[in-house]
Amino acid sequence: MCRTTSQQQNSMGAWHRGRMWASSPSFRRHLFLLRSLSPSPPPPSAAALLPHAVAGGSRCCSSSSLSSSSVRVHAMAGPPVYEADAEAVVRRITPPLDRARHKGQAGKIAVIGGCREYTGAPYFAAISALKVGADLSHVFCTRDAATVIKSYSPELIVHPILEESYSVSDGERESVSSRILTEVSKWMERFDCIVVGPGLGRDSFLLDCVSNIMRHARQANIPTVVDGDGLFLITNNLSLVEHNSLAILTPNVYEYKRLVQKALNCEVNEENASEQLTALCQKIGGITIMRKGKADLISDGKTVTQVSTFGSPRRCGGQGDILAGSVAVFASWAQHFLLSNEHPTEKSVNPMMLGCIAGSLLLRKAASHAFEKNRRSTVTTDIIEFLGKSSN
Amino acid sequence: MCRTTSQQQNSMGAWHRGRMWASSPSFRRHLFLLRSLSPSPPPPSAAALLPHAVAGGSRCCSSSSLSSSSVRVHAMAGPPVYEADAEAVVRRITPPLDRARHKGQAGKIAVIGGCREYTGAPYFAAISALKVGADLSHVFCTRDAATVIKSYSPELIVHPILEESYSVSDGERESVSSRILTEVSKWMERFDCIVVGPGLGRDSFLLDCVSNIMRHARQANIPTVVDGDGLFLITNNLSLVEHNSLAILTPNVYEYKRLVQKALNCEVNEENASEQLTALCQKIGGITIMRKGKADLISDGKTVTQVSTFGSPRRCGGQGDILAGSVAVFASWAQHFLLSNEHPTEKSVNPMMLGCIAGSLLLRKAASHAFEKNRRSTVTTDIIEFLGKSSN
Repeated sequence: MCRTTSQQQNSMGAWHRGRMWASSPSFRRHLFLLRSLSPSPPPPSAAALLPHAVAGGSRCCSSSSLSSSSVRVHAMAGPPVYEADAEAVVRRITPPLDRARHKGQAGKIAVIGGCREYTGAPYFAAISALKVGADLSHVFCTRDAATVIKSYSPELIVHPILEESYSVSDGERESVSSRILTEVSKWMERFDCIVVGPGLGRDSFLLDCVSNIMRHARQANIPTVVDGDGLFLITNNLSLVEHNSLAILTPNVYEYKRLVQKALNCEVNEENASEQLTALCQKIGGITIMRKGKADLISDGKTVTQVSTFGSPRRCGGQGDILAGSVAVFASWAQHFLLSNEHPTEKSVNPMMLGCIAGSLLLRKAASHAFEKNRRSTVTTDIIEFLGKSSN
Repeated sequence: MCRTTSQQQNSMGAWHRGRMWASSPSFRRHLFLLRSLSPSPPPPSAAALLPHAVAGGSRCCSSSSLSSSSVRVHAMAGPPVYEADAEAVVRRITPPLDRARHKGQAGKIAVIGGCREYTGAPYFAAISALKVGADLSHVFCTRDAATVIKSYSPELIVHPILEESYSVSDGERESVSSRILTEVSKWMERFDCIVVGPGLGRDSFLLDCVSNIMRHARQANIPTVVDGDGLFLITNNLSLVEHNSLAILTPNVYEYKRLVQKALNCEVNEENASEQLTALCQKIGGITIMRKGKADLISDGKTVTQVSTFGSPRRCGGQGDILAGSVAVFASWAQHFLLSNEHPTEKSVNPMMLGCIAGSLLLRKAASHAFEKNRRSTVTTDIIEFLGKSSN
């Protein structure tokens, strides 16, 4: 979506309208928001626009528990946490529904996940990407999972190409691994973002193949959202995402704990959450992390922002998969928006941060609508039903 | 859900509210209800609150047909049967929808069932658990069943690990049985309750494997609801549930008949139903039995209570599976509620009894709503649709 000149030309009509909008009364407010996400500290006026700022400043870990490189983190002041103007972000990065657009221009997403054990998670992520507004949504999974995921919905393109250890003999491993990478690579260039992890499972052979896919995606500059078992994979091999500015990690409370233990060699410190999150991003280097919780805390190691719009008190499994699929779409839209943007200030904004902010808000709004209707019996499918209503 | 300190801490806010509620006008009524379930006879005031009491007192079987241990049962007076204040039980044990909670804290349920022949029953039980309010619902079934159950709904986590005799050679049996137990055991500690039986079938090898799983669940102190073919299994091997205070049996009229014949060596005596049910519980020892019927009669061998709220005249297959899944959730909630409760009187209440009462009421209300809408064409899926509305 965001790497071809012809596509950029096609969207010029939209950006013309965008430029008209730039003179609108609300533009300044949006610009302030975006500035607040840039590396330099936000101006006082931006802070005034984001009234829920929470002071940071204390330290993430005891120095005794830190490795040498994280001592640098100690020297920094804890970053302030601003409540993102997430509504404005969603409005700003969502591409116009332009009649001149072709299939695929609103986004092509792929989910790498789905094994013998798990089929719901990759389905939730992939269908959510479509419901948010992507044009095409693929799933790369094992053969066992493919039949089931296909049966959930005819909307998805499901590739039954991954393999688990039980289906591959030791002698075949190398050739099968190579074949899998070749098959996925054929498609990779077409995707605007991939999601690695929903329902991936923990089979060692499968995870080795997915590691290769992640390395290939990185070489091809494809934004990559890592969730679920993908976080298990990268926590045990941080080099897969280190210094990849197009990588987004979306850990829940347990996944974040393991990540902090592994990368920072300390325990989660709730009192200095923003400083610790910043330190984690810096330690891994270049990536964006959305720490999911009561408020979603988002950082790329430079700034920290949060989305705390209330969603739903239901914690049914699967909401993280909706989020991963939604973030993938918004991150690719944000990247396209910023690449096409003529404002130098906005060019310095990290599109992965914007994707996280927008995805977080959308899930929260959809979950709120679904809970209002279904109360305690709300399940993930009910939330997906409200993604459309929530993004308008 | 109910075995970690942090979770208990998370619910402190709720208990604070609970304590305020304890001073409310309706608290005394609820406490009376709960007292009526405790081992000591209910006070006269409780009896006054439960106006539909039915006198027990006569004997279950002729002494000639009783084994020596049931002579003890003969000596006791038949317990009175009180209509449970099931609405109050549901309200009291249902955990608050707390914003600070994480995925899984409202309950993780597993259904052991689903074979080549049956796939609907385990699905009904597992999806009902989610609709009642559990966060995660798993199914452990055979490979043949797994593809189908997965395709019913992406909300369930389906493990295709059980095997039937036709797929295992005699020489493999021991190793396959061991592998199955190992795989299920990996998960067991995470569950708040398991349901054994919906769609299990009667294959001898599969039932042997499930016997091992039940023994493991018992060692791990996991509450276990036994229904359907699980009742066939335990009727032929009562030691699987004997003296397990965390076991709940939910027999229908035929399953109850076989259970009475096997354990009490006599026929069902409708005139002395409550005494016979008490005798059955005492003979097996420690368990809770819900005898399903026009009124559901519930006993743990100490007290007998009933739920007779009218549900629906439709007797479509599958309602027992809804009930089993619902009882599993409520029993785990009741256990959590009582573990966290500061009232010594309530601590003596049997949470398995409360789970049965709440599950019974919920099914009856949902069936009533579904029948009102669909009349004679009501099927199980229609009833599940109303579980949410019925629990509010």
